[in-house]
Amino acid sequence: MKSNDNSKNITWHEHKVTQTQREKILNQKGCVIWFTGLSGCGKSTIANEVSFLLHKKNKLSYILDGDNIRHGLNNDLGFSPEDRSENIRRISELACLFADAGIITITAFISPYRKDRQLCRTMMNEQNFFEVYIKAPLHVCESRDPKGLYKKARAGEIKQFTGIDAPYEEPENPEIILDTDKFTVNECAQQVIDVLDKNNII
Amino acid sequence: MKSNDNSKNITWHEHKVTQTQREKILNQKGCVIWFTGLSGCGKSTIANEVSFLLHKKNKLSYILDGDNIRHGLNNDLGFSPEDRSENIRRISELACLFADAGIITITAFISPYRKDRQLCRTMMNEQNFFEVYIKAPLHVCESRDPKGLYKKARAGEIKQFTGIDAPYEEPENPEIILDTDKFTVNECAQQVIDVLDKNNII
Repeated sequence: MKSNDNSKNITWHEHKVTQTQREKILNQKGCVIWFTGLSGCGKSTIANEVSFLLHKKNKLSYILDGDNIRHGLNNDLGFSPEDRSENIRRISELACLFADAGIITITAFISPYRKDRQLCRTMMNEQNFFEVYIKAPLHVCESRDPKGLYKKARAGEIKQFTGIDAPYEEPENPEIILDTDKFTVNECAQQVIDVLDKNNII
Repeated sequence: MKSNDNSKNITWHEHKVTQTQREKILNQKGCVIWFTGLSGCGKSTIANEVSFLLHKKNKLSYILDGDNIRHGLNNDLGFSPEDRSENIRRISELACLFADAGIITITAFISPYRKDRQLCRTMMNEQNFFEVYIKAPLHVCESRDPKGLYKKARAGEIKQFTGIDAPYEEPENPEIILDTDKFTVNECAQQVIDVLDKNNII
């Protein structure tokens, strides 16, 4: 049916699809699982295991991490305190959009500053925000040193490295603490799944 | 099963969930539908109608537009040529992430510069990128003027307004051209659905 009434065409009622409607298709709730911890603590590894366990349950998740953010959206940012904050601000905005889309969104960044992590929490419905502290002593992370970054930081080749010459502010009230020194990757991931289950996310 | 072998815990094989696996859950392909056109041409209205028609088919889509981007992720950017380009660069990165998540991603921005729109195309698998030119003559858009922006631009209260004192570069080879002067909103949206269907996105 054609019409020559242009204004009528364009100011037509908008059928906006809501977050709740998207979640119904997905049979899950959109949320943000915010992993924080030192370099080498196991954030990416556990994030991938959580995503894998969710996939086995036919749940849609997506990981935001250094691989897909630092080299893309945030490739104009460095590691100064200001750039770290802007990095986390953008990731927070991004994570909220993904959660709004209905996706179980997992962020895996050191995110060393308390106020930056708090930002994402305040942007979200707090019931759908889960801060996960991946706990591992500095000496353990340093002994793992999967990318050789601690060695470079100790040699002064990398400046402002968290835990060496830049601070890490431990979470005060995270929803989950994962002790990677005591549990396997799978056990840690399962603890996250259990919390999602209890909170009716999945 | 607990383990005290820390390095074994953390360098454990990573089960990465792929785009293809996510698409299988969703029964659709991730893609970017890039709407471009003058202010008032009908981008947001048609985007919402496309999203609504997809939802009726149980397909997951998400709209990136001024409402959720300019006030959030890109709230540090203005309307100078440089800021417009950075705006579109970030939206391109974002749209690629959403498509990677398996979502039918609809962007609704004026995006006046050809090279900026081209950027997203080159970042994507080109088969999953659809540039949609929402065509409406300037005088029609100006007569609609839903937000009163043309009036302000003509009065000099808004500077660098596309079509008035800033350029709009028409797409040269868009996948879809929608003539909002001839078709209803629903007819325009249906043309987009048909192209997605033909290209095995849905």
